[in-house]
Amino acid sequence: MIMSSKLKHFAFSTLLVVTLTGCNTPPDHEHSPMMTEVLASSKPEDWRPLDPESTLYVELASGRVVIELAPAFAPRHVANVKALAREHYYDGLAIVRAQDNYVVQWADPNAEKPELARHPQKAARTLPAEFERTIDPKLPFTRLPDGDVYAPEVGFSGGFPVARDRRSGRMWLIHSYGMIGAGRDQAPDSGGGTELYVVIGHAPRHLDRNATLLGRVVQGMELLSALPRGTGQMGFYEKPQEQVPIRSIRVAADVPESERSALEIMRTDTDTFQRLIESRRNRREAWFQKPAGHIEVCNMPVPVRARAAASAAR
Amino acid sequence: MIMSSKLKHFAFSTLLVVTLTGCNTPPDHEHSPMMTEVLASSKPEDWRPLDPESTLYVELASGRVVIELAPAFAPRHVANVKALAREHYYDGLAIVRAQDNYVVQWADPNAEKPELARHPQKAARTLPAEFERTIDPKLPFTRLPDGDVYAPEVGFSGGFPVARDRRSGRMWLIHSYGMIGAGRDQAPDSGGGTELYVVIGHAPRHLDRNATLLGRVVQGMELLSALPRGTGQMGFYEKPQEQVPIRSIRVAADVPESERSALEIMRTDTDTFQRLIESRRNRREAWFQKPAGHIEVCNMPVPVRARAAASAAR
Repeated sequence: MIMSSKLKHFAFSTLLVVTLTGCNTPPDHEHSPMMTEVLASSKPEDWRPLDPESTLYVELASGRVVIELAPAFAPRHVANVKALAREHYYDGLAIVRAQDNYVVQWADPNAEKPELARHPQKAARTLPAEFERTIDPKLPFTRLPDGDVYAPEVGFSGGFPVARDRRSGRMWLIHSYGMIGAGRDQAPDSGGGTELYVVIGHAPRHLDRNATLLGRVVQGMELLSALPRGTGQMGFYEKPQEQVPIRSIRVAADVPESERSALEIMRTDTDTFQRLIESRRNRREAWFQKPAGHIEVCNMPVPVRARAAASAAR
Repeated sequence: MIMSSKLKHFAFSTLLVVTLTGCNTPPDHEHSPMMTEVLASSKPEDWRPLDPESTLYVELASGRVVIELAPAFAPRHVANVKALAREHYYDGLAIVRAQDNYVVQWADPNAEKPELARHPQKAARTLPAEFERTIDPKLPFTRLPDGDVYAPEVGFSGGFPVARDRRSGRMWLIHSYGMIGAGRDQAPDSGGGTELYVVIGHAPRHLDRNATLLGRVVQGMELLSALPRGTGQMGFYEKPQEQVPIRSIRVAADVPESERSALEIMRTDTDTFQRLIESRRNRREAWFQKPAGHIEVCNMPVPVRARAAASAAR
């Protein structure tokens, strides 16, 4: 909502109040739930904790960025990024690029200097592309009902935005805001995870199936998206002192449990998520005059919350 | 392109080289131009200068944000925002909100304090909504060929992203990245331009026809999009010292010509823009393995460039 600043307190005092009146929705959508209602009525089983073996922590001076990895879509890249993290390849590298409405990217700032460039030890420098995969009926897929400009079908699988083409039998991750991919050179097999980028603008969907996506930022996105934009070509920082150091990247499983970020993500294969979709297709908050009646995949949020004490103790 | 950092110089040394080989495009798209070719071959008449009467300069400590206004879509709001600028209503106000993947918004930080709140002099505080308008055949409309999740037709009119519904005879501006709108309270006629917001994330298309859009940032977007996100509800800054002062907002026509930003925008009603659309639907740059074959309206750029000396002298 684009509330005026005067209304901000009002807006949030009503956030958890259930109201179904005063909204100019078409009759058939009159009983769409509001997002706040869906969240308030969700059950513990509608949420899942992050798997520490599929979670990365990017530690910056400004704080921690939490990434959920997507082994179902990029198994080799995920394994390699974890291997790189475990041999501390990323520690001391830097964010070298911030291109407005596009991506933030980290890499070895000395990649062009043979005598200084860092080399993976056991991990691979490059891997075959994992731009797409075969549709597997065992992978959950919650389809969105309103179509897509780029793909025959779009929806969510395991919390990730996904496109499918049943004719070709292929499915692939979508370049939504916050998605993480592996930078590469011109050859499709020239990436591997030593350089990673994060989408910080309108979804650059033309990159779908042209780069290996391997995860999504689930917390700390603002530490990346609000970085000063680089003034060099393609948003590269022109001066070394503009680069933002990466203190470390760790697999959450390797971090003492007391130092982990205790987060839960809403499951996307549930009736609750279906209700959430409906709440986003037709906004019933009183501010809205004309609910859209549609939702584009990159506008569909997957809620993240602090893990409840009870479930943290499980 | 998500080039590795090693390749950045290579990428740009080839930017203006015309090459039509080595790209895995479907046969029928083999001769799509590249964006660089379209720009390089454009003629002076493919570009238009900004009209100083429809241009705003937002002056921040960090620099100038240039906004093109859209009087064809929001005539009363545009006139009122200009009137507010001309009575210096905005000078000394502040950016009070930066919500990640959503909007940055400026307003009177004292709006809630009756004794300190600023009041427009001749300009209006509120206006009737201008969420949409009647389709006028005299308004140019360049339709995009690939459909849209939210609207029956989308394209460009006078440089602005536009949706149309021929059944209802209505057309409206689209909440693409960089679009400027008037914040409002719950009543549709409670906006008017005293508070303005800018889209800084994935296009929040559910706001279309729910708020009055009145312009677009054509230069300086990174001065807004890279602001630290507010930590309060809806991204409002919690402390006054976090707010970013607006030094002034001026109509370009009121600024001495020598101090104006000399910019040209590509016309969107030309064959050249059609070629640009095709270049974005099917990327033929060698990096791309699989051109998308589609373009979503919010991914279609409208190029802006420094005004050539010759045309500046016109």
